Amino acid sequence: MISAIGYGTNHSYTSLGPHKFERRAPGPSDVQIEVLFCGVCHSDIHQCANDWGNTIYPCVPGHEIVGRVSAVGSAVTKFKSGDRVGVGCMVDSCRRCASCLKGLEQYCEGPKGATMTYNGPFIPDGTNTFGGYSNSIVVADHFVLRVPSNLDLKGVAPLLCAGITTYSPLRHWNVQPGQTVGVVGLGGLGHVAVKLATALGAHVTVFSTSPEKKDDALRFGAKAFALSTDKEELEKRARSFDFLLSTVPESHDINPYVKLLKRDGTLALVGALGPFAKPTDNSEVAFHRRTVAGSLIGGIAETQEVLDFCGTHGITADVEVIPIESINDAFKKVKKGGVRYRYVIDIANTLKLA
Amino acid sequence: MISAIGYGTNHSYTSLGPHKFERRAPGPSDVQIEVLFCGVCHSDIHQCANDWGNTIYPCVPGHEIVGRVSAVGSAVTKFKSGDRVGVGCMVDSCRRCASCLKGLEQYCEGPKGATMTYNGPFIPDGTNTFGGYSNSIVVADHFVLRVPSNLDLKGVAPLLCAGITTYSPLRHWNVQPGQTVGVVGLGGLGHVAVKLATALGAHVTVFSTSPEKKDDALRFGAKAFALSTDKEELEKRARSFDFLLSTVPESHDINPYVKLLKRDGTLALVGALGPFAKPTDNSEVAFHRRTVAGSLIGGIAETQEVLDFCGTHGITADVEVIPIESINDAFKKVKKGGVRYRYVIDIANTLKLA
Repeated sequence: MISAIGYGTNHSYTSLGPHKFERRAPGPSDVQIEVLFCGVCHSDIHQCANDWGNTIYPCVPGHEIVGRVSAVGSAVTKFKSGDRVGVGCMVDSCRRCASCLKGLEQYCEGPKGATMTYNGPFIPDGTNTFGGYSNSIVVADHFVLRVPSNLDLKGVAPLLCAGITTYSPLRHWNVQPGQTVGVVGLGGLGHVAVKLATALGAHVTVFSTSPEKKDDALRFGAKAFALSTDKEELEKRARSFDFLLSTVPESHDINPYVKLLKRDGTLALVGALGPFAKPTDNSEVAFHRRTVAGSLIGGIAETQEVLDFCGTHGITADVEVIPIESINDAFKKVKKGGVRYRYVIDIANTLKLA
Repeated sequence: MISAIGYGTNHSYTSLGPHKFERRAPGPSDVQIEVLFCGVCHSDIHQCANDWGNTIYPCVPGHEIVGRVSAVGSAVTKFKSGDRVGVGCMVDSCRRCASCLKGLEQYCEGPKGATMTYNGPFIPDGTNTFGGYSNSIVVADHFVLRVPSNLDLKGVAPLLCAGITTYSPLRHWNVQPGQTVGVVGLGGLGHVAVKLATALGAHVTVFSTSPEKKDDALRFGAKAFALSTDKEELEKRARSFDFLLSTVPESHDINPYVKLLKRDGTLALVGALGPFAKPTDNSEVAFHRRTVAGSLIGGIAETQEVLDFCGTHGITADVEVIPIESINDAFKKVKKGGVRYRYVIDIANTLKLA
C-alpha cells in the first residue's frame, strides 16, 4: 500500500477537509500518478452532499485529473515515469460485456457497471474508490489517457469529464461541418461544448439565462447567442437546428427546445439526470420525427480521441486555478453559477503528504 | 364538377349522416376513384369531435381508402380505369420543399404543409377536403397507391394509415432480423405493427392492458405477451429491447417502457399526439444512451413500399366490415376498444348516390 492524502468529507452535511488514506501499490497493469491538477465538477458537489442517495463516506471526489506518471507495473508498455497523463470518470469496468468490448465502458453491463473514479466500489475487493482531490492515484493502464504535449495541463483537466461528456454526443449524433448546433447552458460543460462543436465546423448558437455571458459565448466560437428566457428569441429560431445539446445540470422544461429542431433533429441532454420539469409534448416530436436522447460521459478510446482532437485544435477549458484550501468556497460559487468556467485545483502545490 | 355523396357531420356534437357535395372534375394529372372500402381510424373520431380544435365543418372523414380507378386525366400514365388503388392520409403537398423532394411529404415544409385527405385545405383554392367515407374521390396521381393483386381489398384499407404509420418507424430506426421489438398497445395500429415487425424478422413482444388479447397477439406473430399493468412483467424485461413502438392513442407514462430498452435502444411513439402523462426521467435515458422519438405516418414512396411488402408477405389487417349506416355505433365501439381490430366500411354496397 502507499500512503496518500486527499480532501474529502465524512458526512453529507460537513465541509471538505484533509483526509489521510492508503491506495493499493501498483499491480502489473497499473499506473501510479502524481496528481497535478483536478477540475471541480458540479457532480462532485452532488456526490459529497449525497444528493443522489448513493454516497459512501468518506468521500474524496475529483474525476478531472491530470498528472505525471510516477511508477508503472511490470506489464505496462504504454506509459513510463514522467509521462503527462489524465484520468476521467472511470478507473475500471468489467471489460467483457458487449458495451466494454465496443469501447463504451461507461455503459458497462457487468454486475457492478463501470468503476467510477470516486464513490465506485473497486473491483474485485469492493472497497470504495477515492478521486483526484488527492496527491496520487493508482489506475489500471487501460483507463489512463495520454495528454497532448502542446496543451496547458490545467486547462486539460476539465476535458476529462466536461470535454468527453459533450464531445461524445456531438460525435454519436454525427454533427457535420455546416450544421446548426445549439448549446443550452454555458457553464463548465457548455463552454467546452461550444469550442468542440465549433472546431467540428458547426454553426453554433448558445442558449443561456445569463445575458452577461454573450461576449464569452462569441469568444468561444459561437456565431449567435439567445437568452433562454426570451420567448421571441426562441420562436424565431423554430425548426432551425440539426442538433441541440443541453448541458443544464438541473431539471428543466425541454419543450421550448424541441420546437427549435428541424425534421429529424436531435436534442441530447447530458446535464439533467432526473425527470424533466414538464412532460414532453409528443405532437411536437412526432410531427417532425424529432428525437430526444441522453448521453453519459464517453468511452476510454473516445476520451483519448477528444484529447487528441483538442491537441490538434488547441482547445482547453477556461479555468480559474484555486488552492485546495479554497474548495469549500469554490463549491458554494459553483452552486451559484459564479465560476468562469471551471475551477481547477492546483493539487501539486497545495496538497502535500506531510 | 362531379356529384358525390358521403357521410359526415356538421358539428362536433352531432352524429354522422348523409352529405351530398361536389368534387372537382379530374384535371390532367388527377385520378378519379370509385371508393370500395374505407377503414375507420381513431383519428376520424377525434377530428369529427373537434378534439384537436382545428376541424372545418362539414367534415367527411376517412383516410384508409381502397377503390377502383374510374377515370384518369390526360397526363396520367401510371393508372388506368379499373386499377385497384389506395389513398392514404394525404392527397397533395407542396412537392418543392426539402422534405417533399426526399419523399417525406408528410413532413412537407410548404406554407400549408401537406394537404390531408380530409380536413386539409385543398391547394390552391383553399376549399376543404373530404375523405373516404364517400362514394368517390379525386386525387393527384402522385398520391395514389397501387394495391398488390393478391391481397383482399378490405384488409388492405387499414394499411393506408395504420400500416404506413407503423412500418415507417420500423424502417427508419432500421429494425433488423433477430432484433427484439416491443409493440405497446394492440389495436388498429398495434396489430398491424406486430405483423410487419414479425415479417421483418424481429422477435416481437406485445404489451397490452387487455389479457384477452394474448391469443390474438401470438396469432399475429408475436413471440411473447406482457400485461402493461403488471410491474413484474415489465421489470423482468428491463434492458432487453432494441426497439419499442408505442401505438397507444392516448397520453401515457413512457418511463416504464424506457427502462425496457437496451443501450442505444429507441422508443418511438406514433399514437399519443400530446404531452405524456409524466415527465421523462432523463437519468434512465442518459445512462443507457437511449432515445425517445416520434413519427408521423410515412411518405408516398414508403406507403407504396409497405403495400408491396404486405403483398410479398400476404399481410392484411384483421377487419370487421360494416355498412355505412353503422358508423355512429362503430365510433362508440372504437372509443371503448371494442373492435377486432379495425372497422372497414363497405362503401360500394352501402353508400350510393341516389
